[in-house]
Amino acid sequence: MRDKVIFGTAFHTPARGRLEVLRDALIVVAGDGRITEVIAQGSGDHDAARARAAEQGRLVELGAGEVLLPGLVDLHIHAPQWPQLGKALDVPLEVWLRKHTFPLEARYADVAFARTIYDDLVSGLVANGTTTAVYFATIHMEASLALAEICRARGQRAFVGKVAMDDPDQCPPFYRDENAATALDEMRRFIEAVRAIAPGGDALVHPIITPRFIPSCTDELLAALGRLAAETGCLVQTHCSESDWEKSFVEQRFGRSDAAVLAGFGLLRQHTVLAHSNFVSDDDLDLIRARGAAVAHCPLSNAYFAEAVFPLREALDRNVRVGLGTDISGGHSPSLLDGCRHALMAGRMRQGGVDAGLPRDRRGVADARITVAEAFWLATAGGGEALGLDVGKFAAGCKFDALRIDVEADGSNVRVWPDLDEPEDVFQKIVLNAGRANIRQVWVDGVCVGGTAGDAGQRASVSR
Amino acid sequence: MRDKVIFGTAFHTPARGRLEVLRDALIVVAGDGRITEVIAQGSGDHDAARARAAEQGRLVELGAGEVLLPGLVDLHIHAPQWPQLGKALDVPLEVWLRKHTFPLEARYADVAFARTIYDDLVSGLVANGTTTAVYFATIHMEASLALAEICRARGQRAFVGKVAMDDPDQCPPFYRDENAATALDEMRRFIEAVRAIAPGGDALVHPIITPRFIPSCTDELLAALGRLAAETGCLVQTHCSESDWEKSFVEQRFGRSDAAVLAGFGLLRQHTVLAHSNFVSDDDLDLIRARGAAVAHCPLSNAYFAEAVFPLREALDRNVRVGLGTDISGGHSPSLLDGCRHALMAGRMRQGGVDAGLPRDRRGVADARITVAEAFWLATAGGGEALGLDVGKFAAGCKFDALRIDVEADGSNVRVWPDLDEPEDVFQKIVLNAGRANIRQVWVDGVCVGGTAGDAGQRASVSR
Repeated sequence: MRDKVIFGTAFHTPARGRLEVLRDALIVVAGDGRITEVIAQGSGDHDAARARAAEQGRLVELGAGEVLLPGLVDLHIHAPQWPQLGKALDVPLEVWLRKHTFPLEARYADVAFARTIYDDLVSGLVANGTTTAVYFATIHMEASLALAEICRARGQRAFVGKVAMDDPDQCPPFYRDENAATALDEMRRFIEAVRAIAPGGDALVHPIITPRFIPSCTDELLAALGRLAAETGCLVQTHCSESDWEKSFVEQRFGRSDAAVLAGFGLLRQHTVLAHSNFVSDDDLDLIRARGAAVAHCPLSNAYFAEAVFPLREALDRNVRVGLGTDISGGHSPSLLDGCRHALMAGRMRQGGVDAGLPRDRRGVADARITVAEAFWLATAGGGEALGLDVGKFAAGCKFDALRIDVEADGSNVRVWPDLDEPEDVFQKIVLNAGRANIRQVWVDGVCVGGTAGDAGQRASVSR
Repeated sequence: MRDKVIFGTAFHTPARGRLEVLRDALIVVAGDGRITEVIAQGSGDHDAARARAAEQGRLVELGAGEVLLPGLVDLHIHAPQWPQLGKALDVPLEVWLRKHTFPLEARYADVAFARTIYDDLVSGLVANGTTTAVYFATIHMEASLALAEICRARGQRAFVGKVAMDDPDQCPPFYRDENAATALDEMRRFIEAVRAIAPGGDALVHPIITPRFIPSCTDELLAALGRLAAETGCLVQTHCSESDWEKSFVEQRFGRSDAAVLAGFGLLRQHTVLAHSNFVSDDDLDLIRARGAAVAHCPLSNAYFAEAVFPLREALDRNVRVGLGTDISGGHSPSLLDGCRHALMAGRMRQGGVDAGLPRDRRGVADARITVAEAFWLATAGGGEALGLDVGKFAAGCKFDALRIDVEADGSNVRVWPDLDEPEDVFQKIVLNAGRANIRQVWVDGVCVGGTAGDAGQRASVSR
């Protein structure tokens, strides 16, 4: 039953950096999974609405120590790299790709293997609070469709991309599209197949056009995928200006930056997701902003593989759309709450610099730090805006994608002291220390799809 | 019962950066909590020793998915700041100290308050795998003794320091020692009292002489505490060259660096623990090394409050003793496994730099990164060496301080794929993704003192 009324305290960041505490509010969810109303405590009809919902058996009351958060939006995940999570990070990027990552991704020709891994991945991410996921799959049609099916079956909101990579100079012979024509044909069939799995503009699972990155694709394929995006209205995702090598490669091939090249091929569109974008110029940021594209900031992976930090503050100041990505498995954590912490640490280190031998004013980049509320906005409403989805906050018209957080759960590293902590403190403590032990229920589209409460919790409260 | 034999696979890093996998080994623990023997699988008496231990009811067999790690050694914790964990990090250091931290620490005049907080702290750290903890308490005698008592009662190996801070120019009137003479007298009585709680050179809990940092102490007090260290043989801890402000303050007051000033007062001794040390020079490192002192590297807190990164690689290259600290609550995580991840991320960012606008060779510090095995060594054997303790590895003569890790625990973010993962991969996955949900049992000195298995687990296996 999706139709329900939640009573309790909710934290969200409806605008960048602005925490709003909805204390003892009622959140009214309709049968289509959308929030129809948020009724503040003290407003005229609050008590009557609560009593009515209780009478109708539609009331879900949060317990002591429980609060509601918007679900997390992970903009950048390499689904096939899930078995590699947390290993092989001590090697350089080239070794990581050639020795570990490409051979692993090639295994997804085996759809049974793919189903095993992808089911574990999707349930693991849901348990960590990821209600919307943007996935790179592999070049394989069947395995990529299996991922889309698993997302639908497990109730995770998702964009799933079959990866396009056809350039024989840059892709290994055992793992690439045969040529641009087959890659295009398969991408078209993949889009149709995903739309058949999950029909309708309001579907939970969408296809996304996914050229791996410029170096792995021929001009012919990039141009064809740009036309396909215009024709189908599919979103696009790719990597952008991630590393020194990648940036130089694209400049040598085209004499322009990644962002400009993508724009030229028709791939820089409304809600195109650009992973990383560490080496973008101010002009690139203006172009990304003008086209309505978005950046998936992946601070942990950038520390390991890019040797650079995305200029987040500059992007935010220019109103570029930005959200967070775990970049599994270039990043080793499946938790986007961890992602908030990494974004905070990266921002602090970017501001403070890394060489104590330099004077203070030459060490870092002024005003690069972000606040806890900004980090959380990136992981929720920022990610939603990046994708053009009504998620990431509690407001009428938004989808009810939410986390029921229990700060008193067994195994919690969040410690709240009622005499000492204001609601704002509790919010910060959750963002900085909550983990999957604290995530009691996960709702997507109004449906309970996971959490530590499991089936028992779902039966105990009116939640499904 | 401390006397036991553990059968299973153990990971440890007995030397810096060198992972050793003890596959299906037997670890023999005597009644005094020390390891007497590590018997490798395949060695002549392995099977007989295992059978004998089983007959005697002394065998603890690790289950499928379980491995043994050395316990974690946290070199820098501000115990009274526990209620502040994960909050108030968006303010500058001065505001953090004056508005939040000093008023909070002043509350520990109330020993009942102290007992409540400290009990929660110690049990929380044990649950996160911290088997040895080095604590700053507060200026209060009773509350600081309560912390020592709680560590002993809960079985955590600990160094507990009553904080000395007497300079009226730098300490607030509501939170400082009356003068150098009273501070010295109380420190002497504190040492005696802790030694009475836990007598003997092999005791679990030790006092540690703790001048807060040079700016908060008068010359008279620093000199007196140096003499007290020589007289009592107590270890010393303090902060060293943490921030631009602090470094400049000490240079202006003494015309020398923190390390040199501490040496001059007799406080830079064998196993003195220097928190942070971000702004140490090469000469400082040589001095620290020559005196046998150690650095508590606190990468997360440094990102938030120091705007600098400790030159870890340089220190390791000079064979300075180094371990890790969470720096609760300047760092927001209570987990020293998290601390490993922060040290790894800080090392990567130090190498890669933070300003993508600079050319590669001018962005960071060459070779600053560390490996996963180095990070784990810092958190275990490195910390043990810093303190002069026989802990942090599995070897005859070492104390049995260990964690029973279950990679298949409910809520685990460690995912192991037997067909794909070598033991080295499992080790990396644990260091990068394990959390308290994975910590099934925690042993200190051969005694089970915590873990998710709780009393049931303790009863189920022969472990206490």
